[in-house]
Amino acid sequence: MEPQTTDDRRTAEQGAAIDIERIHDLAESLLPHYALIAADNTLSDPQTNSRLQTLTGILHELHPADVADVLEQLPPKERVLVWRLAAPEEDGEVLLEVSDAVRETLIEAMNSEELLAAVEDLEADDLADLADDLPQDVVAEALQTRDEEERAQVQAAMSYRDDQVGAVMNFETVSIRADVSCEVVLRYLRRFDSLPDHTDKIFVVDDNDTLQGVLPIRKLLVSAPEEMVADVMATDVVRFRPEDDVEEAAQAFERYDLVTAPVVDAADKLIGRLTVDEMVDVIREESEADILNMAGLKEEEDLFAPVWDSVKNRWMWLAINLVTAFVASRVIGAFEGSIEKIVALAALMPIVAGIGGNSGNQTITMIVRALAVGQISGAQAIRLLKKEIGVALVNGVIWGSVMGLVSWLLYDSVGIGLVMVAAMTLNLLLAAVVGVLIPILMERSGRDPALGSSVLITAVTDSGGFMIFLGLATMFLL
Amino acid sequence: MEPQTTDDRRTAEQGAAIDIERIHDLAESLLPHYALIAADNTLSDPQTNSRLQTLTGILHELHPADVADVLEQLPPKERVLVWRLAAPEEDGEVLLEVSDAVRETLIEAMNSEELLAAVEDLEADDLADLADDLPQDVVAEALQTRDEEERAQVQAAMSYRDDQVGAVMNFETVSIRADVSCEVVLRYLRRFDSLPDHTDKIFVVDDNDTLQGVLPIRKLLVSAPEEMVADVMATDVVRFRPEDDVEEAAQAFERYDLVTAPVVDAADKLIGRLTVDEMVDVIREESEADILNMAGLKEEEDLFAPVWDSVKNRWMWLAINLVTAFVASRVIGAFEGSIEKIVALAALMPIVAGIGGNSGNQTITMIVRALAVGQISGAQAIRLLKKEIGVALVNGVIWGSVMGLVSWLLYDSVGIGLVMVAAMTLNLLLAAVVGVLIPILMERSGRDPALGSSVLITAVTDSGGFMIFLGLATMFLL
Repeated sequence: MEPQTTDDRRTAEQGAAIDIERIHDLAESLLPHYALIAADNTLSDPQTNSRLQTLTGILHELHPADVADVLEQLPPKERVLVWRLAAPEEDGEVLLEVSDAVRETLIEAMNSEELLAAVEDLEADDLADLADDLPQDVVAEALQTRDEEERAQVQAAMSYRDDQVGAVMNFETVSIRADVSCEVVLRYLRRFDSLPDHTDKIFVVDDNDTLQGVLPIRKLLVSAPEEMVADVMATDVVRFRPEDDVEEAAQAFERYDLVTAPVVDAADKLIGRLTVDEMVDVIREESEADILNMAGLKEEEDLFAPVWDSVKNRWMWLAINLVTAFVASRVIGAFEGSIEKIVALAALMPIVAGIGGNSGNQTITMIVRALAVGQISGAQAIRLLKKEIGVALVNGVIWGSVMGLVSWLLYDSVGIGLVMVAAMTLNLLLAAVVGVLIPILMERSGRDPALGSSVLITAVTDSGGFMIFLGLATMFLL
Repeated sequence: MEPQTTDDRRTAEQGAAIDIERIHDLAESLLPHYALIAADNTLSDPQTNSRLQTLTGILHELHPADVADVLEQLPPKERVLVWRLAAPEEDGEVLLEVSDAVRETLIEAMNSEELLAAVEDLEADDLADLADDLPQDVVAEALQTRDEEERAQVQAAMSYRDDQVGAVMNFETVSIRADVSCEVVLRYLRRFDSLPDHTDKIFVVDDNDTLQGVLPIRKLLVSAPEEMVADVMATDVVRFRPEDDVEEAAQAFERYDLVTAPVVDAADKLIGRLTVDEMVDVIREESEADILNMAGLKEEEDLFAPVWDSVKNRWMWLAINLVTAFVASRVIGAFEGSIEKIVALAALMPIVAGIGGNSGNQTITMIVRALAVGQISGAQAIRLLKKEIGVALVNGVIWGSVMGLVSWLLYDSVGIGLVMVAAMTLNLLLAAVVGVLIPILMERSGRDPALGSSVLITAVTDSGGFMIFLGLATMFLL
């Protein structure tokens, strides 16, 4: 059980934002003296020591989540300095809050003893979360200090993939039997030093820990003391299995406005619970990942990562983009003869490719979002395709005509104008079809439909656009 | 107070997904008989009536959030049929759950009486949420049936902008005085028929309703009955003002793992509360909006909206894209003389533009995300700019050399190869600078940094890329 509730903690008042500039300035001015800082975090020079103590004071006032935020915003050297000064008893919680990239840099700056001290007070599920990033010997030693039950919990949590409910569930369940009165429940609860975070319901189980129902605290508080749990509890409970998909669990939390929910095994035995704070993180990470994936970024980047780390994070999609751009270039190369004769084609072809790319990105974004919230089922795909084709036709006729007219006037050639209208409409149609099909096929083949979708659709509309425009021009204008 | 807790409700078990195909098939087969359905939702033909009753039965089993989900997935005509059959007493809640686009179509299908009945049981804050979408006379009549306090609450909630805390707060607060014992609190709570959803803390106020602190239920339950609230309550409370930014409130919920939080006025008088379920919706909508905005979509679209509605949602960014594409086209037009002499330039120029666009999108996505979670402060901008320039230089040298070599071999010209290296490096630098500056300047000028960022960066890297490449070629190769 955690000793403190969130509400006990010193938290920054809304509006009184963390003064990151001040922390940054203090840290920067202390950097030259870093090597001189004594083991007890003091400096011999009174003036610099006073700055050091001011900084330490500010950091100790902060909630662990705020310390994590400060660390994210600092360049690497200042980050290590601030990390050293932060309250060591909160180190474990800060490590849980920071992004993967920053966590790595912080763990690198700690020795085994510091790491052990940091993870000492963590819950089993939190220790399991960090385990992958910690040195193996630290994990082994941390497990030694736990009792058998907790060791089993850590190992259970570590046995699930990151996208499974088992990896984010925690083990702090409070459970009661159905055949007791509400008064007994209240007396039982009073024996706890504190109740687990987010406790909004108590799990009702039988002798074998099989889940019978839940007793919402809200109901317990308004029930007469003599009422039996069996009569007050809710039996139709949203429950999860540890192997369930964590994003689907988060959607269920969102849909049914849950605060906590039981996790049970195949025999309905209670093994843990999910809490809304973890689900909020899942929702946030899921949409982050979609945004990053669509732009062709592998993962969240430490904003102040060394240049080389950033290059590694981004090189893959840049390489894919270069390959597709090269293909588009060869398509143009195949029509060099036509361009030599009508050089206007070179100037107009990016317009055809561009509008296809933009429109395709709109379509693919819509479809990716709808797939993410489970809004597209089999029979709907055809219907969506028809609709997108309709939108493409309307846009093709409207914008194609506009640009056709402009090209006609600019190059004084009706033919060029007509080819523009036709090419733009056809490329918009191509964008619509491929924009619907790419994410749906990605999903069907078990991939993330967001993954590089923007790069892929642009590749198709670029090569396709050049081919359609230059092909039509070669056929009708030469 | 709401009569039911979430847990009482019939909810779909996780995994037992809603059978949308079945609902779709039933609705489709009933469509031809729509006009014959009697006022009591029966049909005279026994066989079709049996199908109608099956569909009604399925719908009545569903949680309002699931009904909303079904409605989102159905084409307009079937949607109206299903909407008519859904449990009318839940209509108001379904209206709250569906997207703006679908809500419009549902409200259109209802007459004033049905609308009044639907909003009758809604909380003041929920009625305020719907008010903008309802006909004015329905809102006026719905307000008539409320008492003065509730009318004032609805009007207060409606007076805030959608992005302010006041628009999403609710008024179901339970408050107590500090000078009573925990036992008195428990007795007081027992007098409620039910406690508001998500009640995880009770607000402690003085005689003027000024917030003194909060009593977490978790603490109340473990406290000795004779302990005084003043000794148990937490006084350092995260609180919000109705005019606060709702996205910042959601971030505070995420950061401090809150379930509810008090909303107070300038004199610290308690006026309402925020609940985590609303904040989850805010987080979801915020990232949705970012994804849609980056792709140049104005707002969430009804997947089955008529073609014309979709065209209207998307036309603006397509038009902007056409203008920028036209500018890029004129840049090429200025170099038509060079292209006539070296037609290879036409084939190679999209590669230079393309890698700039892709890399710029990676940079701008990173910066937009960092801004969204408040990770960039003033002094950091310069540092980020330096880092992105570093990444661009490395990528320019690596990928520029690759493509330079390929171009050299392909066109048997060292000059073309060298121009490629230089042009790609310069365009990557341009992408880095503009990718950092666009979102930061957007934010500084009070705009959403995600808005059309992808379209804008592509515009710069296209025109810029063509200009750099063709300019260098003209200078050095002709």
